[in-house]
Amino acid sequence: MKIEIFDSTLRDGAQSEGISFSVSDKINIVNTLDKFGVAYIEAGNPGSNPKDIEFFEKAAKLNLKNAKLCAFGSTHRKNTAVEDDPNIQSLLKAGTDSVAIFGKAWDLHAREILKVTTEENLALVRNTVAFFKQHGKEVIFDAEHYFDGRKDNADYAMAVLKAAADAGADVLCLCDTNGGAAPEEVLQGTKEAVEAFPGVRVGIHCHNDIGCAVASSMLAVQAGATHVQGTFTGIGERCGNADLSILIPNLQLKQGYECIENDLSSLTKTVKKITEISNMSLPNNKPYTGYSAFAHKGGIHVSAIMKDSKTYEHIDPELVGNQRRVLISELSGISNLLYKYKEMNLDIDRQNPESKRILEEIKQLENQGYQFEGADGTIELLLHKAHNSFEEPFSLEALRLLVEMKPNSPAYSEAVIKIRVGDQVVHTAAEGNGPVNALDNALRKSLKSFYPNLESMQLSDYKVRVLDEKDGTGASVRVHIETATAQDSWGTVGVSTNIIEASWQALADSIAYGLMNVSGTGKDEGTEPEIK
Amino acid sequence: MKIEIFDSTLRDGAQSEGISFSVSDKINIVNTLDKFGVAYIEAGNPGSNPKDIEFFEKAAKLNLKNAKLCAFGSTHRKNTAVEDDPNIQSLLKAGTDSVAIFGKAWDLHAREILKVTTEENLALVRNTVAFFKQHGKEVIFDAEHYFDGRKDNADYAMAVLKAAADAGADVLCLCDTNGGAAPEEVLQGTKEAVEAFPGVRVGIHCHNDIGCAVASSMLAVQAGATHVQGTFTGIGERCGNADLSILIPNLQLKQGYECIENDLSSLTKTVKKITEISNMSLPNNKPYTGYSAFAHKGGIHVSAIMKDSKTYEHIDPELVGNQRRVLISELSGISNLLYKYKEMNLDIDRQNPESKRILEEIKQLENQGYQFEGADGTIELLLHKAHNSFEEPFSLEALRLLVEMKPNSPAYSEAVIKIRVGDQVVHTAAEGNGPVNALDNALRKSLKSFYPNLESMQLSDYKVRVLDEKDGTGASVRVHIETATAQDSWGTVGVSTNIIEASWQALADSIAYGLMNVSGTGKDEGTEPEIK
Repeated sequence: MKIEIFDSTLRDGAQSEGISFSVSDKINIVNTLDKFGVAYIEAGNPGSNPKDIEFFEKAAKLNLKNAKLCAFGSTHRKNTAVEDDPNIQSLLKAGTDSVAIFGKAWDLHAREILKVTTEENLALVRNTVAFFKQHGKEVIFDAEHYFDGRKDNADYAMAVLKAAADAGADVLCLCDTNGGAAPEEVLQGTKEAVEAFPGVRVGIHCHNDIGCAVASSMLAVQAGATHVQGTFTGIGERCGNADLSILIPNLQLKQGYECIENDLSSLTKTVKKITEISNMSLPNNKPYTGYSAFAHKGGIHVSAIMKDSKTYEHIDPELVGNQRRVLISELSGISNLLYKYKEMNLDIDRQNPESKRILEEIKQLENQGYQFEGADGTIELLLHKAHNSFEEPFSLEALRLLVEMKPNSPAYSEAVIKIRVGDQVVHTAAEGNGPVNALDNALRKSLKSFYPNLESMQLSDYKVRVLDEKDGTGASVRVHIETATAQDSWGTVGVSTNIIEASWQALADSIAYGLMNVSGTGKDEGTEPEIK
Repeated sequence: MKIEIFDSTLRDGAQSEGISFSVSDKINIVNTLDKFGVAYIEAGNPGSNPKDIEFFEKAAKLNLKNAKLCAFGSTHRKNTAVEDDPNIQSLLKAGTDSVAIFGKAWDLHAREILKVTTEENLALVRNTVAFFKQHGKEVIFDAEHYFDGRKDNADYAMAVLKAAADAGADVLCLCDTNGGAAPEEVLQGTKEAVEAFPGVRVGIHCHNDIGCAVASSMLAVQAGATHVQGTFTGIGERCGNADLSILIPNLQLKQGYECIENDLSSLTKTVKKITEISNMSLPNNKPYTGYSAFAHKGGIHVSAIMKDSKTYEHIDPELVGNQRRVLISELSGISNLLYKYKEMNLDIDRQNPESKRILEEIKQLENQGYQFEGADGTIELLLHKAHNSFEEPFSLEALRLLVEMKPNSPAYSEAVIKIRVGDQVVHTAAEGNGPVNALDNALRKSLKSFYPNLESMQLSDYKVRVLDEKDGTGASVRVHIETATAQDSWGTVGVSTNIIEASWQALADSIAYGLMNVSGTGKDEGTEPEIK
């Protein structure tokens, strides 16, 4: 059976603590979710937030393949006709084919929060749903607090659903807004709605305040819901929403529902990307996509999975693009390295003594905080250096960086740099709008005349992570730089307690790697390596 | 009804990636769990680990009030009589009143992993349980892979339970060892066991590989299980075990079961302590005990909880020793601000024209990349400044920062700073292991003689986020600093294209805020604000 997946990362997710999406973050997430294949993307509340209006204007120009965008807002205000309500107007202006309208399904909320009678609340629901149907929209009605409302006054909760259904709602989405409903309450409450409205799709929207959002959503599907709301990585107000990255494989791989047309082999990559855009860290123990999700530590487990992996794995990790890890395993390390050599067209075999040493060095660097996933530039330079198949395009002689600040004037940043290229020494200086930018400008200025190709390489991404944050301003930082030409892009990494030094390492590697490939230094001409 | 809580932090928890408990860590955790009031503490496998033997010797001397210690091990080996098996002997030697014995309930495992016939496996179970019963132990039989076994060969899974029950097992604990059983399978499988063995307690042991461990355990209890295994903070092999810190309040506060004799007001403190001993970080969105578990960001939510907290809270946070928090952000309205004023003891009402202006300013700053959640220090300073209830403890006159690098020597960082305190000007310099650390050292050095209290404030966290990363090294950065005294902690934030400037803003605010509260500057003496 087909299940509609409705992602609310950009709306409910944005309400979680620590999340703040820029407009370009939002566009990036929409494209990522669309590519993965979700059916709906709830993208914000255009009535409450000026950034969301700007977003909807840009989003209208996207050419989405799988997902429909959906704008979110409430029923109209009391004492204002629906067509005159500015929030309702903003929702229309967002220009999406679908709208999600939330209304109160708990009489307590109608009386105490909206300050309307229960009858008036039904009219708000009816008017608002009918208005958007008249404007040709698909209407998803979010029955806020349906499960709490049902406990207090089941007849009224049902009457609210009926008001929305009678007005033409396409989906009646049952919301556990406070996240406190027990799994069996969700099962029972969904059953009742499915039976009462046979012609309407029923949806489920769970929060994770009692740690049951995924299981409760599964039980709702079992009870007949065909529309499932959540956020891709589980972020959301308070304890978060149902985590779609867990729910989708649970439903699709384990229970045979069809949530996504594609297979799920890009799940792990997609979770990592959205987590990165959200500037969150991915919990190691996250089901399906966490680094430890298929990691085996207990000796008994490891020897068993070597006989038959299903003895301690509930699915094959490749189905979700993750991989099995046996903790402390040198064999898998050598294999990874051999794989990389092949990609780089280096003819080095399993017996090469250098490989074992490199593996040790990589482990040591990782212990210091280096992370080489996404830093293929740094890894390839390291391998080339180890096998003497690399000639450094430049080397640092000295560097001085100065920042000056006075009240009421912009900070001044200047880098002075002395580098050697072959037998020549260049000594120059540059400003920047920050110290790392000044450094970047100075390095490029000094290399320009030697390597005119340099201009085709642009820094496309600069990231900083503080490691061991508990050490405060004395902690190590990891800098990750992404560099791109029109054709390619590559990542490099640096680690130091000094952010300038860490940035320098990543910057110098990014340019050295780019020059090696753009000009062909140290490489077989004609066999362009695959850079990802 | 009474439910036995069985904690396996020290056994299954110790098998999770990144966890390594010393003997004193283990003793510390046992005391903490005992004080909280769990019934059983599974404390290790004395047969597999020499550290565990040392632990059991020490643990025997503890004077526990609520918990029984339990040692863990497998059924005896084939071809060795039970009494001659060294692992069985170690289990006896551990000297606990209870033992947990795991045996295979999936015929595949018996055949492929143990390499015994299904009949021989039943004998291993029977012999081992009977042996410990003869030695006067309480025996908890862990039916490993019960739920997977049941799907493959239900009769055999049941026969394994029967072998243990016939030999006198006190508890038949049904294990979802691979963590892949769906909630309804757990419900159904538990029902069958409860019905088949009316005289024996039935237990449940779930893993979280499909994100359902808590819900499945609840369903098992609904089906008649009275013994629940898990780990207090959810750690465990791969994706972890059922999280007792969520399961206990779910069962006790929301469903009326009796898990713990005490009330649960020490839950949050206990979770923090065990997380700290495990050297893990506590996820902000953790149900019940996370920092954001009762945090409200959306303006609609805040105005509602001010009217009635149950509108957006499934329980009163004080029941689990946590607290409500209202966040200020672009999504927030006047209500969020009013709540903050109340916390700060500022007597400002809804009509105050300044409030609307401040809200606008906050939205503007957020558009520039500021983020005020978790930056209550910066927000409070901003509000105090707007309402003239704040006197700056110092101001910057000038700042110069220098970083020097040469090949093969460590980078050198130096900050020169000139600041005004009242009518005095201090001009000084300091080094650091990075530029921001140098800045921090110089600022503290120059303020020390004026504010001796400064030493009680330590930077406890420093985070950097690059905004609009596509601008490469020219992008804005946001710096977030967390500062703590022995009693309190507060966050501050700074944003600039210059990381030094952004760090300075967050640093200066963190110290200004701390001095205001520690020394009472700019505050009514005697009305200490609630800082969180």
